[in-house]
Amino acid sequence: MLKLFYMTGACSVVPHIVLEELGVPYEAILVDFAKGEQLKPEYLAINPKGRIPALATERGVITEIPAILGYLANICPAARLAPVDDAFAFAQMQSFHMYIATTIHVTFRQISRPEAFADGEQAKVALKAKVPAAANGYFSVIEQQLADGREWVHGDSYSMSDPYLFTFASYLERGDRGNPELFPHIRAHRQRVLQRPAVRRVLEAEGLDW
Amino acid sequence: MLKLFYMTGACSVVPHIVLEELGVPYEAILVDFAKGEQLKPEYLAINPKGRIPALATERGVITEIPAILGYLANICPAARLAPVDDAFAFAQMQSFHMYIATTIHVTFRQISRPEAFADGEQAKVALKAKVPAAANGYFSVIEQQLADGREWVHGDSYSMSDPYLFTFASYLERGDRGNPELFPHIRAHRQRVLQRPAVRRVLEAEGLDW
Repeated sequence: MLKLFYMTGACSVVPHIVLEELGVPYEAILVDFAKGEQLKPEYLAINPKGRIPALATERGVITEIPAILGYLANICPAARLAPVDDAFAFAQMQSFHMYIATTIHVTFRQISRPEAFADGEQAKVALKAKVPAAANGYFSVIEQQLADGREWVHGDSYSMSDPYLFTFASYLERGDRGNPELFPHIRAHRQRVLQRPAVRRVLEAEGLDW
Repeated sequence: MLKLFYMTGACSVVPHIVLEELGVPYEAILVDFAKGEQLKPEYLAINPKGRIPALATERGVITEIPAILGYLANICPAARLAPVDDAFAFAQMQSFHMYIATTIHVTFRQISRPEAFADGEQAKVALKAKVPAAANGYFSVIEQQLADGREWVHGDSYSMSDPYLFTFASYLERGDRGNPELFPHIRAHRQRVLQRPAVRRVLEAEGLDW
């Protein structure tokens, strides 16, 4: 059975929702960052990078969200959560995931873990101060993509990109890392994702009030 | 015909090498950052993010290196530069690409574009100062992977991951962003990649003395 190593409310909620949407058997295993479990030998044996998420399969462990999503798409093609039979459409989906991973996620980390970028109080203040304007710029590229009235990120079909955007749009709602009011289409999209039963089940399982 | 939009010596050299290795017809089009071409309307119409690389296909434009590589793998399965018929192995390859994109690449950007993270001279100094230790940590994960004596990143077969590592290992050789002497396996791997005719052709085409 697939095992997802996650931390409550972290980006691991993305593959958590996707697993729940797919309906495949899986076990979600909490890696408690408050107890430093991500850096203990037991977990480093699973993921030497000391990060979540990690997906343990019968062949071995997969890390990095877009790689995990690509894997789940390929082993569950019938669920139609990703266009696995269309190389171009699949690449567009992965490109969307990469954009969140390399820009929005990294930028938000300047608030949650500024010490990963630079030492010193002054640098931390400067790192945090830069986030809202940068994030607003990144989200506006996505807002534009949704502006044609589409229901989901890639058009009419719900895909793995929707819980990915939903998760980072939920972080944006915290108000300290960008202005969600600038993005009415992203907000409406977030509400649509929030109504999905699989999403509600995962939020309840992780104890999240999103 | 596929068109690759690139900037000399930038990370776009990765898909540039992969296209050359695949032997598919393509055109490489320089986006001259020195002239600010990446932010001109002509290029923003191709990639609204104002970045390189971008791969123009007959269906549309693909951005983000792992997405471009995944696409090329799927349309050129016979070249065997990626295990497209093995979901797990393919995910491992993409995970490797994601790791470079989200950690090493982002960390190196603290040197090449500190202003993207924070404003102020003091913050820039702090951002740059943090890079070598962080990069050494990231590369040591890869060094460990190569330590079993394998020839290529994923074992006996040359794959798209090899020019990806080669490119960032070449940046590491600059000496200001980590200590390449800590990584003998990565260095030996870099020399092996450097000997490939396709790699030499691309370095010559971009005028790079790596």
